[in-house]
Amino acid sequence: MNEFELIHHIKEKHGLSRVGDDCAVLPKDDKLDLVVTADMLVEEIDFRLEWTTAEHLGHKALAVSLSDIAAMGATPKWAMLSIAIPQDLWKKGFLDAFYDGWHKLAAQYNVELVGGDISRSPDKFVIDSIVAGEVPNGEAVLRSTAQPGDAIFITGTLGGAAGGLSALRAGTRQPSANPHEEKLLLRQLRPSPRVHAGESARTLGASAMIDISDGLSSDLAHICSASRVGAIIDSELLPIDPGIASVDIPADRAVDFALHGGEDFELLITVPPKKISGFTERAFTRIGDITPNADVIELRAAGKSLPLIPKGYRHF
Amino acid sequence: MNEFELIHHIKEKHGLSRVGDDCAVLPKDDKLDLVVTADMLVEEIDFRLEWTTAEHLGHKALAVSLSDIAAMGATPKWAMLSIAIPQDLWKKGFLDAFYDGWHKLAAQYNVELVGGDISRSPDKFVIDSIVAGEVPNGEAVLRSTAQPGDAIFITGTLGGAAGGLSALRAGTRQPSANPHEEKLLLRQLRPSPRVHAGESARTLGASAMIDISDGLSSDLAHICSASRVGAIIDSELLPIDPGIASVDIPADRAVDFALHGGEDFELLITVPPKKISGFTERAFTRIGDITPNADVIELRAAGKSLPLIPKGYRHF
Repeated sequence: MNEFELIHHIKEKHGLSRVGDDCAVLPKDDKLDLVVTADMLVEEIDFRLEWTTAEHLGHKALAVSLSDIAAMGATPKWAMLSIAIPQDLWKKGFLDAFYDGWHKLAAQYNVELVGGDISRSPDKFVIDSIVAGEVPNGEAVLRSTAQPGDAIFITGTLGGAAGGLSALRAGTRQPSANPHEEKLLLRQLRPSPRVHAGESARTLGASAMIDISDGLSSDLAHICSASRVGAIIDSELLPIDPGIASVDIPADRAVDFALHGGEDFELLITVPPKKISGFTERAFTRIGDITPNADVIELRAAGKSLPLIPKGYRHF
Repeated sequence: MNEFELIHHIKEKHGLSRVGDDCAVLPKDDKLDLVVTADMLVEEIDFRLEWTTAEHLGHKALAVSLSDIAAMGATPKWAMLSIAIPQDLWKKGFLDAFYDGWHKLAAQYNVELVGGDISRSPDKFVIDSIVAGEVPNGEAVLRSTAQPGDAIFITGTLGGAAGGLSALRAGTRQPSANPHEEKLLLRQLRPSPRVHAGESARTLGASAMIDISDGLSSDLAHICSASRVGAIIDSELLPIDPGIASVDIPADRAVDFALHGGEDFELLITVPPKKISGFTERAFTRIGDITPNADVIELRAAGKSLPLIPKGYRHF
């Protein structure tokens, strides 16, 4: 049993896939549902201290969970933050900067820190980020409700976070003198969750939504699997991050980053035909369509259509 | 700045002490408040794998958070569980047993697992346990509302978890042929949260409540500090775990375990004079009284009254 099979087994057997979405949806009152998410970030698995700063890390810990809230079309409300801290980071300066990074992003969305835990760690820094949001009853946008004939839209641009990771791996560190490269590094180290775009997508009539954390091909596969549909993506419509060229990445690898690079934290949205105009009028980019061919994902490029195999980048 | 001062600084500066109780209390609807808690358990800091089993660990991860819910007088409803797992525990058997331990306890209280995260860890096992409960609007029992003249009650017996820890440190492992010793080991490794007792204490009119996780002296100090009161405890009234004698602990050390031993997960409850009879009629033990002497805690023993200095046991 490999890593993915074991996680799948645990999720299936022990109820973690009951909701099977970016967030669990729970009844709150007669107007609102509560959506909740938890994300564990582990040193050397999900981040490297020599690549980032305490403040970026605090920001990112919250951003990844806000992105899950956004993918439900919900509005974030409150959060908890649990940390296990090793001896060498057990310093006022590091912890203040970490919480400052968290709080600055939280302030943008009026998210209140209501609790959490602080523990020692024998060696590695571990963060668990918990965020709760609200959405009108029954209106949380799930993964499982895309329909054949729906259009596929995304927010923003793709591949930037993978470009930033590639630069970090090659030894580049912040701040970079090249402003394009600096932007790529920040896409990896200090991602921006698309909270307002997620709320707009819900009110504009999105049929399904997910955030692009594993990579477009993997996250689109999650939507297709949950909705029992297929998809076709047009390679030429992909809004590739223009900064990727600045780090000497050839054009074909840039497409690879856009298709499979994780951690862009953009939103992937499916839209019924009658609702498409609302999205094209705003800052969403149409990249393809949902098809009836369950679990078949195709990529159209240069007039040809080929199967698109999901291969999300492992983060490190 | 030592460890406690640093944690205090972080909590004060970064908003973690906003609520300053076992759980944060959030409005849910026009009948109920939501209470939420998070507890981080870290290998080698909070538990040792050579002392416990995967199933006990899953049980304990949930139990510590249920105990926080109980201390608010709330009813637990749903939970999330995030884990970071090292390579050598990344096995079906270990993870199944861990989740089974969690689910068996959850089933006792109809707690539903709604989410969480599973990550790799470079070496240590880290668990973040999140539990949410419900309590009628405005009825959560806080730490800050004890009054001079209130009686102090506790549930169950004290010192057993410290007795179990002492046996583990001395090399004893489960199962022990001595049934008293086995019980002590289980008090440390597989604690029982006092969920129903916490709900009863609320409906019977408790004025303040906390769970005994750091030790009676420390947790009583938390109540006194939050309520700006003092307390006097009668040493002869302490219900010391009868099993402690079975592990060759002398009587004076047994009192020490009862006063300062952590992780008993009993409830410490303050009760206004008019409500006392409701508690004495049930399985609560009166151990002392709240006094007007802010932050002065006294221990009465053999006719003398001495200051009781809080000294909660570090868990390891």
